[in-house]
Amino acid sequence: MDLLIHREELVRALARAQGIVEKRPTSPILSAVLLQATADGLRATATDKTMTILADYQATVRRPGEIAVDAANFFQVAKVLSGDIVTLTLTDNGRLEVRCGSALFKLTTFSAADFPVTPALDQARALTIESPALRGVIDRVHFAVAPDDNRYGLNGAHVEDTSAATGAVVRFVGTDGNRLCWAQAPYTGELGIGRKMLLPRKGLGEIRKLLEGYDGPVQIAFGDRAALIQYPGVLVHCRLLEADFPDYRQVLPAAFKRRALVDRDALREALRRVSILATDATNSVKFQFSPEGLVLSARKLDAGECREEVPIEYSGEAISMGFNARFVVEVLGAMAGSRVSLELGDALSPCILRDMDDDNALFVVMPVRLD
Amino acid sequence: MDLLIHREELVRALARAQGIVEKRPTSPILSAVLLQATADGLRATATDKTMTILADYQATVRRPGEIAVDAANFFQVAKVLSGDIVTLTLTDNGRLEVRCGSALFKLTTFSAADFPVTPALDQARALTIESPALRGVIDRVHFAVAPDDNRYGLNGAHVEDTSAATGAVVRFVGTDGNRLCWAQAPYTGELGIGRKMLLPRKGLGEIRKLLEGYDGPVQIAFGDRAALIQYPGVLVHCRLLEADFPDYRQVLPAAFKRRALVDRDALREALRRVSILATDATNSVKFQFSPEGLVLSARKLDAGECREEVPIEYSGEAISMGFNARFVVEVLGAMAGSRVSLELGDALSPCILRDMDDDNALFVVMPVRLD
Repeated sequence: MDLLIHREELVRALARAQGIVEKRPTSPILSAVLLQATADGLRATATDKTMTILADYQATVRRPGEIAVDAANFFQVAKVLSGDIVTLTLTDNGRLEVRCGSALFKLTTFSAADFPVTPALDQARALTIESPALRGVIDRVHFAVAPDDNRYGLNGAHVEDTSAATGAVVRFVGTDGNRLCWAQAPYTGELGIGRKMLLPRKGLGEIRKLLEGYDGPVQIAFGDRAALIQYPGVLVHCRLLEADFPDYRQVLPAAFKRRALVDRDALREALRRVSILATDATNSVKFQFSPEGLVLSARKLDAGECREEVPIEYSGEAISMGFNARFVVEVLGAMAGSRVSLELGDALSPCILRDMDDDNALFVVMPVRLD
Repeated sequence: MDLLIHREELVRALARAQGIVEKRPTSPILSAVLLQATADGLRATATDKTMTILADYQATVRRPGEIAVDAANFFQVAKVLSGDIVTLTLTDNGRLEVRCGSALFKLTTFSAADFPVTPALDQARALTIESPALRGVIDRVHFAVAPDDNRYGLNGAHVEDTSAATGAVVRFVGTDGNRLCWAQAPYTGELGIGRKMLLPRKGLGEIRKLLEGYDGPVQIAFGDRAALIQYPGVLVHCRLLEADFPDYRQVLPAAFKRRALVDRDALREALRRVSILATDATNSVKFQFSPEGLVLSARKLDAGECREEVPIEYSGEAISMGFNARFVVEVLGAMAGSRVSLELGDALSPCILRDMDDDNALFVVMPVRLD
C-alpha cells in the first residue's frame, strides 16, 4: 500500500473511526481501523461489533493494499502533523510509514485478514429519507433514549411506520421510562418492517454525527437483525437490539383536563434558575399552574429556596405538580419553535409537551411526587 | 444588609470567592464568602486558611450589614440570573434574599462572626512592582513549582533580592526537581526579607488570576510568616511555606560545552508530534544534537516509532540525550521570543534554556537516562 492523502481528509477519516472503535477492546484488533486502498481511493472501516462504519475518502493511490492500524493512536498522530499532504506507505516489515513535512512515523499494524468481516444484509427493500429530516428526527428522540437501562428494550429508538392517506411517514420513538419522545418524517421507497426495529442509542448518535454537513438523500434498509444506513461514500451497518419496546401508545393520555401555553425560552431559563436550588438527586421543581400564571419553586436543605413566575395562557383548574427539571429542560431544548403547550391531567398524570410550530414530534414527561 | 449591585459585579465577586474557598471544607464556614456592606460598597472576603482574598465591589448600599453565604452555591445562582441589577437583602429570619427580574432566591447563611479573622501583618516595609511585570514573573515560574511534593520546600516559589548596581530587582524561583525556572523584575520600595520567602503554588496562581486586567502598581509586603499583596480594591493575605528551598544556584552549571540555537515554535511543534509515540510514563524523547541538525525520536511499545529533524545552529561535539518532552514543551511555552538557546554539558548534565529576547528569566531542565 502506498498513497497520498490530504491531511484534513485523513484526520476526518480517523476522527470518525476512533469515535466508533471500542475504548477498552477485548481484542486489540477491535481498536483498529481497517484501511483499504484501491484505484478509487481510501476506504476506512471501523467497528465496535454492534455497528460498523465504512467510509470512502479521496486519496491518490500509487500501490493498492490493505492494513489495520490502532485508530486512536493514528488519529493522535494525524492531528498534529504539519503539512498539506500525507504519504502512507506499508513497508515490507509490516510497518505503516506516515510521512508529512519533516516528520516520519512508523506505526505498528494488524493484519487486514484479522479484521472482523462486516455482515451482509439483504438490501432489497430500502426507504429513502432526506438527511436534514433524518437529523431532525434523531435530534428530537436521541436524548430521551435510555443510556444503559436494565429494561433492555429502552436502550434503543423504536422505528415504526405511521403512514397515512397523506403519505408515507416513518416515526422514531425513544423513552427511558421518565420521558418519551417521538418524531417523524416523510419517506419514499419501502420500509421493510422487521420483527424488532430498535436502533441502539450509540448507533443513533454515530449516524447523527455522520449526517452532519451532508444534505442529500439517505437510504435505510432494515433486515431481521440489522439496519443499513447509506449515502454516497458512507455505509453504516448497525445491529438492532433484540428486545421488546413497550407499547408506548398506552402511556399517551387520550385527553387533557388542563392546558398551558408558554414561551419556550422563558420557561427554560426560569427552570434553569430555579433548579439550582432543587435537591440534587431528584432535581424536582414544583410547578403551580393557575390562570394567574405558572409559579416554579424549589427548596434544598442547607442551601435555601427560590421561586420564579412565568406568564402562561391557561385553561382548566389550578394544580400543583412536581417535575424533574432536567427532563423538562431537555425536552424544551429539543424543540425549535417559540411557543410550547403543556397538556395536563391530574397531579401524577403524564404531561404532554408540544412545539406549537411542529406537528411531527411529541414529548411526554412523567411528573414526580411532591413531598 | 440591603443593597443593589450590578449582576456582572456580583458574578465577578463570587467567581473570585468560590475559586479560593475550600472545596471539601472541614467546617462549612470555610466554604463561605463573607459579605460586608458599608457606605463605600460591598467587600467580599474568602479564605482557605492558607490565603485570604479581600476585594471591594461597587454597590449601592441602602442598609449596611454583614453576612456569610456558601460561595459556590451563591455563584451558581448569580451566574444564571437574568437582569442588570440584583438586590441583596438580609431578612430578620437570617435568610439572604436575592432578587433579580422575576426570580427570588432565599439563601441560608452563616453568622459573619463565625468567619475566620484575617491575620494582621506589619506593613512597614513594602515593595512596589508593576502588575504586567509581576504577571510575567509568575507566568514564567508558576508552572515549574511542584504541585504537591514530599519535599515541602518545593511547593512554593522562592523569592529573593537580586538587586545590582543597575537597580533593585526581585527574583522568583520555582522547581520540582526535574526543571527549575527563575524570572525577575525591577521594583521600588523595600523588599523586607523574612526568614523563609516561599509563596505557595496555589497562592501564586490565585494572585496571577487577580492581576489579570489590572495594569497598575502592586504592593507586596513580606512578614515573617505571611505576605500581603495589595492594589486598589484588592488585598491578598498569603501564608508563606515554613520550609527550606534548596540552594538552587548549586545546580546551575557555570559553563557549557555545547550550545544549540533553535526556533522556539519549530522545536515545540516537532516535540509535540514526536512525543505522541513517547512512552506514557516517562514521556522521554531522544535528542540527537550535531552540527547537521537536531533529530528528535521516540519509540513506544506496541505503537511504533517516529523521528523528526529540526534545524539548529550548533557549536560543540555531537551528543545524544533524553528529555521528558512535556518539561521541555512547558518551558518553551513560558517563553515569548522566537529564538531559544540550549546550553548543554554531558548527556546527564542539566540543560539551560534561554529566551534570546529575555535576559530576565532562565530555565533548567534535567535530562533523563536513555535506555
